[in-house]
Amino acid sequence: MIDIAVLGYGTIGSGVVEVLDINGDSICKKAGDRINVKYVLDKKDFPGNPIMEKLVHDVNIILNDPEVRIVVEVMGGTDPAYTYVKEALMRGKSVVTSNKELVAKYGAELIDIAKERNINFLFEASVGGGIPIIRPLNQSLTADEIVEITGILNGTTNYILTKMADDNMDFATALKDAQRMGYAERDPSADVEGYDSCRKIAILSSLAYGMQVDYDDIYTEGISNITQTDIKYAKALNAKIKLFATSVRKEDDNVYAMVAPVMIRDDHPLYSVSDVFNGIYVRGNVIGDVMFYGRGAGKLPTASAVVADVVDCAKHLNKNIWTIWSSKKLELADIEKIKHRFFVRVLKKGNSFDNIRKMFGQIEEVPEIVENELAFITPEITEKEMKDKIESLNGFIGRIRVRF
Amino acid sequence: MIDIAVLGYGTIGSGVVEVLDINGDSICKKAGDRINVKYVLDKKDFPGNPIMEKLVHDVNIILNDPEVRIVVEVMGGTDPAYTYVKEALMRGKSVVTSNKELVAKYGAELIDIAKERNINFLFEASVGGGIPIIRPLNQSLTADEIVEITGILNGTTNYILTKMADDNMDFATALKDAQRMGYAERDPSADVEGYDSCRKIAILSSLAYGMQVDYDDIYTEGISNITQTDIKYAKALNAKIKLFATSVRKEDDNVYAMVAPVMIRDDHPLYSVSDVFNGIYVRGNVIGDVMFYGRGAGKLPTASAVVADVVDCAKHLNKNIWTIWSSKKLELADIEKIKHRFFVRVLKKGNSFDNIRKMFGQIEEVPEIVENELAFITPEITEKEMKDKIESLNGFIGRIRVRF
Repeated sequence: MIDIAVLGYGTIGSGVVEVLDINGDSICKKAGDRINVKYVLDKKDFPGNPIMEKLVHDVNIILNDPEVRIVVEVMGGTDPAYTYVKEALMRGKSVVTSNKELVAKYGAELIDIAKERNINFLFEASVGGGIPIIRPLNQSLTADEIVEITGILNGTTNYILTKMADDNMDFATALKDAQRMGYAERDPSADVEGYDSCRKIAILSSLAYGMQVDYDDIYTEGISNITQTDIKYAKALNAKIKLFATSVRKEDDNVYAMVAPVMIRDDHPLYSVSDVFNGIYVRGNVIGDVMFYGRGAGKLPTASAVVADVVDCAKHLNKNIWTIWSSKKLELADIEKIKHRFFVRVLKKGNSFDNIRKMFGQIEEVPEIVENELAFITPEITEKEMKDKIESLNGFIGRIRVRF
Repeated sequence: MIDIAVLGYGTIGSGVVEVLDINGDSICKKAGDRINVKYVLDKKDFPGNPIMEKLVHDVNIILNDPEVRIVVEVMGGTDPAYTYVKEALMRGKSVVTSNKELVAKYGAELIDIAKERNINFLFEASVGGGIPIIRPLNQSLTADEIVEITGILNGTTNYILTKMADDNMDFATALKDAQRMGYAERDPSADVEGYDSCRKIAILSSLAYGMQVDYDDIYTEGISNITQTDIKYAKALNAKIKLFATSVRKEDDNVYAMVAPVMIRDDHPLYSVSDVFNGIYVRGNVIGDVMFYGRGAGKLPTASAVVADVVDCAKHLNKNIWTIWSSKKLELADIEKIKHRFFVRVLKKGNSFDNIRKMFGQIEEVPEIVENELAFITPEITEKEMKDKIESLNGFIGRIRVRF
């Protein structure tokens, strides 16, 4: 029997206990031993819930118990999660976490501590919920140099964009619907402004390139400016608008990373990733394109990924599973030099396609959707050029990057 | 330095040597040591090719060399691959293979030998080419009980079906095109009759359920009967025809498996898997739906998966990576009891929707595509019922299972 402790009995923590219960027998077969939840740490009490037998309020009971070999951290946030996780690792306990903030900020350090002690710090559930992506990056794509990772990494924004497209809702109504469904928080900014996606692409990039990518360095744009009119234009272009989190290694080995809405067509592998689903597209220099898809959040899918990591820890109690993520900082390339095509909307008044053509060169005119607007797609230009041109454009309304 | 030997210098074998060459430095970092190809076994000579330095014609040179820790088998077929692989394992060498026939037939036995000797027998490249699916099944979805695996597992047939739909080719023309592109063999029956998909779903099912699924037991139907008219009907129904390899665990714990063309709509995760791409959809009892997508064949993608397995072997030279696949045979459920909806075509002469309705109950009429035909979709009925009804149907032309 292998004793574990669960820090935090919220949605995911209770899911972990539930999964270990539902699938206990098959998990035992795969782990080679029975996994036993010895303690659950939470500030709250849960009167009448059988979990009370295992509930403790003092983390030291867990840290001081040598029988606890694996600690599951599902509290979220970095304080006190960071202190607890670090202390657990220092005492020779493997740690599994679903906490993207903790991993994005302290991943390199915690991986190092685990490596020194021949134990493990695993975090499959921190990106993509139940979708296996961390382990494939670490263990399956080892023959490749990763050239690009692009993901729809936030289920809430994907749900909102899907509702805007399929049910013609405006942004505010779709957001309210997402809140009603329990997908969006009361303060939705972490999701809709792209911060959540940003932390996740920071984690994936750090793993892919083996160096620390700081999320503060990643250009991040959310979906709160996307309007129903943008959606209509996208439809006219046979496209969908998705919130992409991307990191790309260019030919000069520079890496750039960004989070922003993009228009894609059905030739893109992520085109059909709708609703609350996540999808992650990876391009390697020998494997070509691979894509992973599934539920990016939710109690049981996330708990499934956490428990799979617990199984891996149980199978490798005294053997570190190598993770390449050094604390050396990766300096990202200047985003202003990156080229995209842009979909652009301007007021018709004072504009003509002829004048726009003089400014941008070979543009693609977009059929009229709104009476007093002109819309077009630029050729490939840098972010800097686009920014400059926006300033000299008459009646600029908005722009969305285009990937087709 | 870890010495390996490559058995077979065909497309994949030369790809393995190439990948180890292109990405040698990053592979060394991930494996923890440099991977050195000490020998390549092939019957042929390759005059002028630098590989000649490493070429041997006698497998015993490899088997007798204790410095060779990992053997890569990419010859294909089971004779002599089986003998060579078994002998290598018996002598304490880990083996990596891309050989689906070998794995489908002898997987359980070879896994056992590796386990006894604390070495590894890995076969990521045997299904889905470069797509990580074996390792995710083995290591990422360990918290789940697998309820369904459905894959588009054969790139050649998917290419043919895509050409038939997108370029209005008939089956024979699309097949010739696939042969011209090098996707289909001169004798294409292993692909078009579904045998290749059958072996692959047998491997995935054995891993998912932990018991031996014999491919001879799997009902297998290919795509050679699919006509351009079927494709036209599919389009009228907003559907695509895909060759699905499926295994499903029913609520009574019985597993059924089949390979057959199906009609799907864009709400199915595999809908946008086109051209030579493969996609594998897995459903677990806690994780829900996950999907994996990528190039299912080709020199470098397949070599990428082989080399990733070599890296894993190198990291686990004296530690078996547990694979649950016992030699105990899984008796598949009788396919005749399985229910589907069927798309059915009959001659108009002697038929009416009223009569068909008397026979099948609530059918869905399909808009007329061919003047002298009636087409409809049945309610859910068993394979046996469908078979019986075909016999009493006037002017039966064909039927395709429907998954929407």
